[in-house]
Amino acid sequence: MDLSLFFAGTAGSVPTPRRGLPAVLLRRGGDRILFDCGEGTQRQLSRSIGLTDVDVVFLTHFHADHWLGLPGMLKSFALRDRTAPLALYGPPGIRQLVAQLKFVLGTLPFPFTVTELEAGEAVEFGDYEISSFNVRHRGVAFGYCILEDDRPGRFDAELAASLGVAPGPDFGRLQRGETVDGVTPEQVMGPGRYGRKIVLSGDTAPCEALADAAHHADLLVHEATFLAADADRAATTRHSTATQAALTAKEADVGLLALVHLSGRYPGRAVLDEARETFERTVLPRDFDHIDVPFPEKGDPELVRWEPPARIAP
Amino acid sequence: MDLSLFFAGTAGSVPTPRRGLPAVLLRRGGDRILFDCGEGTQRQLSRSIGLTDVDVVFLTHFHADHWLGLPGMLKSFALRDRTAPLALYGPPGIRQLVAQLKFVLGTLPFPFTVTELEAGEAVEFGDYEISSFNVRHRGVAFGYCILEDDRPGRFDAELAASLGVAPGPDFGRLQRGETVDGVTPEQVMGPGRYGRKIVLSGDTAPCEALADAAHHADLLVHEATFLAADADRAATTRHSTATQAALTAKEADVGLLALVHLSGRYPGRAVLDEARETFERTVLPRDFDHIDVPFPEKGDPELVRWEPPARIAP
Repeated sequence: MDLSLFFAGTAGSVPTPRRGLPAVLLRRGGDRILFDCGEGTQRQLSRSIGLTDVDVVFLTHFHADHWLGLPGMLKSFALRDRTAPLALYGPPGIRQLVAQLKFVLGTLPFPFTVTELEAGEAVEFGDYEISSFNVRHRGVAFGYCILEDDRPGRFDAELAASLGVAPGPDFGRLQRGETVDGVTPEQVMGPGRYGRKIVLSGDTAPCEALADAAHHADLLVHEATFLAADADRAATTRHSTATQAALTAKEADVGLLALVHLSGRYPGRAVLDEARETFERTVLPRDFDHIDVPFPEKGDPELVRWEPPARIAP
Repeated sequence: MDLSLFFAGTAGSVPTPRRGLPAVLLRRGGDRILFDCGEGTQRQLSRSIGLTDVDVVFLTHFHADHWLGLPGMLKSFALRDRTAPLALYGPPGIRQLVAQLKFVLGTLPFPFTVTELEAGEAVEFGDYEISSFNVRHRGVAFGYCILEDDRPGRFDAELAASLGVAPGPDFGRLQRGETVDGVTPEQVMGPGRYGRKIVLSGDTAPCEALADAAHHADLLVHEATFLAADADRAATTRHSTATQAALTAKEADVGLLALVHLSGRYPGRAVLDEARETFERTVLPRDFDHIDVPFPEKGDPELVRWEPPARIAP
């Protein structure tokens, strides 16, 4: 099962020539789940992978740079006669936000549901879930944890055959947990394997809930609005420095740290270098890059740079 | 005096990979006046000429694709501690729009005024004015006419000298309309010259008010949402076809026609070719192109293609 995050916008607060406002798209099988939807997100998608029919949108909080792209995207879906439902989730207050936008949205031609999540509440998606947790920002703000169900251990076919089980339907019975001719699943199945985990910090100062959620995540996407030199400003505005993001990644022992919500006031290289002093496995996605998160036995999470189609400009 | 229009977004309704949502920036001397502000306009400016401190914004109407970029742009100005005032003008209803956006805008740190214009009302800017006129769209919608004051005729210095007027202060008196030693201004000044005129159609089906306003404009910026083959749809939605835009340009005998509000459903070339069958002096700006409008004696309005700085991607 494929699992990847596409970075539609990696700036914070104000867009820069290179970076659009916050939006990250989770792709898993046919699922398309957007986290935040800054102004211009629909165009960022158009310019890269296409304006896909997002199924679900999660907002982390209600600062305008994180959602001003939502009404326009919904209007564009309406204009192309979308009929598939779209579900919006966010912290308490999201219903009020949508009510305030009613005058723009009008009546959408597709089912549009809005759900307020409590901190810690999970939304189920078949064999994975997305749960929220409180982070430390100005006003209510969530981070999100995407967590797959655990997978059964690896089946040792050679061992099963050597124990006298015939290849075929009996192998399937063992893998589904049945005992076959006295051979138990425990004898021929390896230990259960954890599902993959991706954690998104949202906008936040360092906080325990995030560190807990990020524990052993395959991928932690963390905001890095400031450099350590501006730690005071980070504290005042309840954002994080690159060093703080890296410390959280280190303590949580994540597989890969991706820094987002970048300010135009720093060169990206400076943000990356600072984080890597604390946590080497750090990357700095550009807009339209994506990170593949394979099953651990298949490899490590990997940043894949976007290759712009030459014909699309500007 | 320089006068040019910068095309920050040339799509209509839905952005495309190549075209952002409607926004056109008028530049004259130090003045920066934006017409419409579709979602993503602040980023379009950042990516090209920089997010300039726009002094004035005119909205043509209240369909979301024409203004959803306004709150984000104002928030960005606020974040960089702008203090210069910003004036917003639009059709009746614009005060209500801003009231509905109050929850996003909060308290801006710069003076922000909102003025409802009646159709035909003009806003004065020193030696030019911008006036509104009703166009034919769904709901109230304006086009705008940018009109410079007339300039005095050309002073014939040689003739004045041959009539016995001494070069120096007396030349100035003649140019200011005084009679000097029996020589009248009419003898030595050519006929008065019209100020330059730029007309913006906004979103509209063909209509008389627009044809009147566009009469002898140096530049007419006209929407061309449809091709003639889809004239029925254009009529239903109260938009124009490329042919209709060209017919208006032809009847008004404008200097140059620039087509905007382009739909992703047609190749730009098809829109341009269709219009040129009716009106040869037609151009199709891409995003970030601009059109210089020199004084007529200095040359014709000219489309200048944007040269992207190579280092900015995506």
